[in-house]
Amino acid sequence: MMPAKSASPDQPIAVFDSGIGGLTVVSALRRELPGEDIVYLGDTARVPYGGKSRTTIERYSEEIASMLVAEGAKMVVVACNTASALALSRLRNVLPVPVEGVIGPGVEAALAATRSGHVAVIGTKATVGSGAYAGALQAARSDIRVTSMACPLLVPLVEEGLFDDPVTDAVLERYLAEIRAGDADALVLGCTHYPLLSRAIARVAGPGISLVDSAANCARVVARHLDEAGLRAPAGKTGSLDISFTDAPDDFLSVVRSALGLEAGKVRVRPVPPLGQ
Amino acid sequence: MMPAKSASPDQPIAVFDSGIGGLTVVSALRRELPGEDIVYLGDTARVPYGGKSRTTIERYSEEIASMLVAEGAKMVVVACNTASALALSRLRNVLPVPVEGVIGPGVEAALAATRSGHVAVIGTKATVGSGAYAGALQAARSDIRVTSMACPLLVPLVEEGLFDDPVTDAVLERYLAEIRAGDADALVLGCTHYPLLSRAIARVAGPGISLVDSAANCARVVARHLDEAGLRAPAGKTGSLDISFTDAPDDFLSVVRSALGLEAGKVRVRPVPPLGQ
Repeated sequence: MMPAKSASPDQPIAVFDSGIGGLTVVSALRRELPGEDIVYLGDTARVPYGGKSRTTIERYSEEIASMLVAEGAKMVVVACNTASALALSRLRNVLPVPVEGVIGPGVEAALAATRSGHVAVIGTKATVGSGAYAGALQAARSDIRVTSMACPLLVPLVEEGLFDDPVTDAVLERYLAEIRAGDADALVLGCTHYPLLSRAIARVAGPGISLVDSAANCARVVARHLDEAGLRAPAGKTGSLDISFTDAPDDFLSVVRSALGLEAGKVRVRPVPPLGQ
Repeated sequence: MMPAKSASPDQPIAVFDSGIGGLTVVSALRRELPGEDIVYLGDTARVPYGGKSRTTIERYSEEIASMLVAEGAKMVVVACNTASALALSRLRNVLPVPVEGVIGPGVEAALAATRSGHVAVIGTKATVGSGAYAGALQAARSDIRVTSMACPLLVPLVEEGLFDDPVTDAVLERYLAEIRAGDADALVLGCTHYPLLSRAIARVAGPGISLVDSAANCARVVARHLDEAGLRAPAGKTGSLDISFTDAPDDFLSVVRSALGLEAGKVRVRPVPPLGQ
């Protein structure tokens, strides 16, 4: 662990993701915490994380988060379910600032939403394979039942902007068949891309199941952390938003920015130094 | 450029790709050149290249190829259309051994296949956006007409093993609509994943268009290079195949190996050192 620095409320919150999808979390943070400066870094040079191994995901996450902390972040938000599932404990061990991911907040929201005690979770292969949601749900409430489904085609479909499209619906019909056949009544959108598909997912999942968007609850949990640590930005301040990527982002960035109504200035590209250099 | 070493016929051919798809080229090389030792490295830690920028694709390609040459390859085969389209000239500038990609061989095969003089090309966003196929086709024959279409969903569909599937057919119907409406009679499969979809592509493209598989012609061009340079492995030798990746490969590897009938021993995972370290 690096030596703790004394963080101050004026410092920005760092948010990172494997790519562009984490901007859904930024959008929720802007609504919940309009006074906070936010620095967002998407690792588009190495996107996606969702099919990669724990070792690789931990290494990439540590490289990015360490750089953002060295640059003065008072807190790190891991706006990527895959990195939250596989790298959060490592980041909490090595970083001298609070680190929050999207899994814990998603679990909290799912427990509040379910009445049947049966929660469904969809995510990338790495997220579902890690068992992070199922483990955290059952650790919080041992009688909870969990049905998880890896949905690797959803990220590419979202990145092509096919939010409301027969192809996307056909793919969702398959992925959600087992979930629909059971009595789960809460469906965790366990990937930051999925809120952009929430209309299609709700349509295919049917009326008996509520969608749980980790992003919105993540913003509330971050606000709570800041208050507890005395790190909330001064009242009356208007927060800035700084967005950068590790490689030139493709058209999906404009799709996301318009879908989220996210105001941001010029987007920068900057490399991430490998650890130890 | 590094100082030229004196290459010998006993050295292996290095083949690299952004991931697993380049094994279609390895399969063609094994058939065409059964006496050659082949070392394959798939950059699964950073896959896919198809949506990334030229700068990033050049850097990754140079890191991988330089390592393989330092380890003793007599020739480098870029078994990735994206890296061939964007990084081949850089690799030829910096490497002291012959470098062959899949674009030139694909162009050669397309020119041999077309009678109408209208060639269609499908590939990743980066490959199609680079204009490499269109440029090379028109440089070779100025009256050639080219219709290109980026097909970003095909790689994820192939990686899910959906080779013959209504969802894949529906996606292909869209991508190939413009090509089917024209008089192109040769369709270049401009991504090493696509030969695994050739049945579906042929079905949707219809009988009037022949599919051009760069992989097969690439193997013939590599054989020609080796003969010209006096680097062909000694007659009677049985070549070995060594496969490694930069991150643990997922299930797609077994899908590909069984689809290609590729015999290979243990697959290794090894990191690629960034240039300059």
